[in-house]
Amino acid sequence: MTTDKSEEQELGLTTRRIESLTDGVFAIAMTLLVLSLELPPLGQQLSGTQLQQLLLSQAAKFFNYALSFVLLAVFWIIHHQQFHYIKRTNRTHLWINILVLMFVALMPFSTSLIGDFPGDWIAELFFSANLFIVGLLFQLNWLYVTWFKHLTDRSLTPRLVALGLRRGLVTPAVALVAIVLSLIDAPLTTHIYILIPVILLLPMFRR
Amino acid sequence: MTTDKSEEQELGLTTRRIESLTDGVFAIAMTLLVLSLELPPLGQQLSGTQLQQLLLSQAAKFFNYALSFVLLAVFWIIHHQQFHYIKRTNRTHLWINILVLMFVALMPFSTSLIGDFPGDWIAELFFSANLFIVGLLFQLNWLYVTWFKHLTDRSLTPRLVALGLRRGLVTPAVALVAIVLSLIDAPLTTHIYILIPVILLLPMFRR
Amino acid sequence: MTTDKSEEQELGLTTRRIESLTDGVFAIAMTLLVLSLELPPLGQQLSGTQLQQLLLSQAAKFFNYALSFVLLAVFWIIHHQQFHYIKRTNRTHLWINILVLMFVALMPFSTSLIGDFPGDWIAELFFSANLFIVGLLFQLNWLYVTWFKHLTDRSLTPRLVALGLRRGLVTPAVALVAIVLSLIDAPLTTHIYILIPVILLLPMFRR
Amino acid sequence: MTTDKSEEQELGLTTRRIESLTDGVFAIAMTLLVLSLELPPLGQQLSGTQLQQLLLSQAAKFFNYALSFVLLAVFWIIHHQQFHYIKRTNRTHLWINILVLMFVALMPFSTSLIGDFPGDWIAELFFSANLFIVGLLFQLNWLYVTWFKHLTDRSLTPRLVALGLRRGLVTPAVALVAIVLSLIDAPLTTHIYILIPVILLLPMFRR
Repeated sequence: MTTDKSEEQELGLTTRRIESLTDGVFAIAMTLLVLSLELPPLGQQLSGTQLQQLLLSQAAKFFNYALSFVLLAVFWIIHHQQFHYIKRTNRTHLWINILVLMFVALMPFSTSLIGDFPGDWIAELFFSANLFIVGLLFQLNWLYVTWFKHLTDRSLTPRLVALGLRRGLVTPAVALVAIVLSLIDAPLTTHIYILIPVILLLPMFRR
Repeated sequence: MTTDKSEEQELGLTTRRIESLTDGVFAIAMTLLVLSLELPPLGQQLSGTQLQQLLLSQAAKFFNYALSFVLLAVFWIIHHQQFHYIKRTNRTHLWINILVLMFVALMPFSTSLIGDFPGDWIAELFFSANLFIVGLLFQLNWLYVTWFKHLTDRSLTPRLVALGLRRGLVTPAVALVAIVLSLIDAPLTTHIYILIPVILLLPMFRR
Repeated sequence: MTTDKSEEQELGLTTRRIESLTDGVFAIAMTLLVLSLELPPLGQQLSGTQLQQLLLSQAAKFFNYALSFVLLAVFWIIHHQQFHYIKRTNRTHLWINILVLMFVALMPFSTSLIGDFPGDWIAELFFSANLFIVGLLFQLNWLYVTWFKHLTDRSLTPRLVALGLRRGLVTPAVALVAIVLSLIDAPLTTHIYILIPVILLLPMFRR
Repeated sequence: MTTDKSEEQELGLTTRRIESLTDGVFAIAMTLLVLSLELPPLGQQLSGTQLQQLLLSQAAKFFNYALSFVLLAVFWIIHHQQFHYIKRTNRTHLWINILVLMFVALMPFSTSLIGDFPGDWIAELFFSANLFIVGLLFQLNWLYVTWFKHLTDRSLTPRLVALGLRRGLVTPAVALVAIVLSLIDAPLTTHIYILIPVILLLPMFRR
């Protein structure tokens, strides 16, 4: 696939509108997560105690809501950081980003799945595979733009390229562990994701 | 309908906010596609095997989700490319774009329709007609702005105008074939759309 | 209520972000209109003929979808035109705009109401009252900013102020007629809105 | 946690995209509030009188819709005002803002809860706790950026810092009263929020 500058100019593609579409999809996916929380069916009368039980029984769903929100935020920050240095785009780069969005938009579904079937290995596998693919696509995005250097800003040093790769590996690596875990001890799976923010605080992922 | 510059100035219309509204509608329509995926009704207990069957039985819905996402992305890219050269707007141009958005926002409904009624000719016809109209309106948009040249940037050469027309013909042409096919062999219809990304990779649609 | 410049500066309010929030709310409200279209309940098997009947029986809902989409677009264009000349904001002006958004976001509900209860006078009254209030608030917005002239751009001539008032009167005036009509002959009500785009094409509303 | 400038530059974080994501989440959360309004189930035939009763019986839900819309708008204005002076961001600041969005996105759920269980103390407690947390996080955001002064604009005077703190206290303080009230006299709880706009009009919160 050719990636010379003339093609990009003819495409008329700018990173500004990719960022705008991405911010939109992330904002909507993050806000739609709330639909995975359960309200009793309309018209049904619940006593105060029953409502209390309903909310308490959803503790896992609230945890999933917070987890998916944080994971989407981690991905959004990675996007943010990558596009700080990405100044131009081309057809291949654009489609990598559209695939990213396709799997980001699937997250509310995956989150509802683990909420409705807690501990079910198929649900957990689906959720972790979704995260794994998003993580991998972000890594692919970074490899692609840093390989074809004319897409990035000159201020991008080799050290920053390596930092970006290191950071981008965290989520797919943890998701891969989660996928294996979902086949062995499914109920444990989602808890492993708490590792992601912890790992990202380690010095080697910060500079 | 008059299109002189004074009218546009009085309208106070800018392409920047059309792009902003368009990015919003596309982001939402793309993210709402996920609602076409089916979750078992709340409160119903499914065993792991039943969940597996439910997900596998939805293979066609996942395909439709990916297909509609990619087709909306193709349209978004066309919009992106057209507005790279569109610098001004007027009333007629604005309303063409609002009609585009009206049919873009209908796509989650059409996608749910072919997902819930796979192989039904009416569902397939509805979906393909929706795509055909969006494609046609984008073509109309391009014809309009390139005809009234003062709406576009000076860097737009006749070769680029022709390239835009060629590219814009792909989706409505394939959708027209799909409409005919939906009347003959409905279950085959959606598969034909895989042609669109393949065709758009041909050299004649790239420069 | 004070409106001196120092207050605005201390508020730290800019029109750019009001436009951004507004474009978001309009894009979402327009796209959520699609939820007023009815799909058969999941799991229910319909024959092709039944699907055809279901879609045909929804002709009025498709009409309502298109109508509400166009009316929201008319309001969005008015917002667009007003903010082309509005360069500064203050607390009162900001809250007028938030009230506008509150009633814009109600439109998908009102549209579902007339779709589910076609010809019912209460549904029609609700829908028309919703439109009337949005139209009135936009008019109030224009009166406010043109009265406190330091909020607007210097290029705003008295002729343009009057043109904005004339245009802004069309929707609330037609909605008022619709409200009266909903009390006399409810099933006719929604059809009267076709007048709005026709009236807005008259020369006196164009310059 | 280090907050030196070099880290921020390596993060590649800008306030512009935080504002863009925030405007998106607020716009969606505000528009999704409409889903808390109840429509009769599809297919059910209601007479005009029954529809009238249904709408009237929802008077409290319409009040909640307006209340939550206004409260979200109050928070959005606070965000707006804070970011007028916030020129740079860092990791901690970014995560405070993501937590803000997580609880803003929860508001449609909390609003549905008090709508479906009016006067239930658990529902009222949940709603008020949600508001309290959002208010507290906004206050934390302001304390953080004004403490680490290099994140803010030079035009931010101590008087403006104090004004921001005073304003930011209103919502969490009223929410705290509401939390206490929900344990004593739950049905009264939501009405207390009408105090917020009234208090914010007092001179001490305006300059």
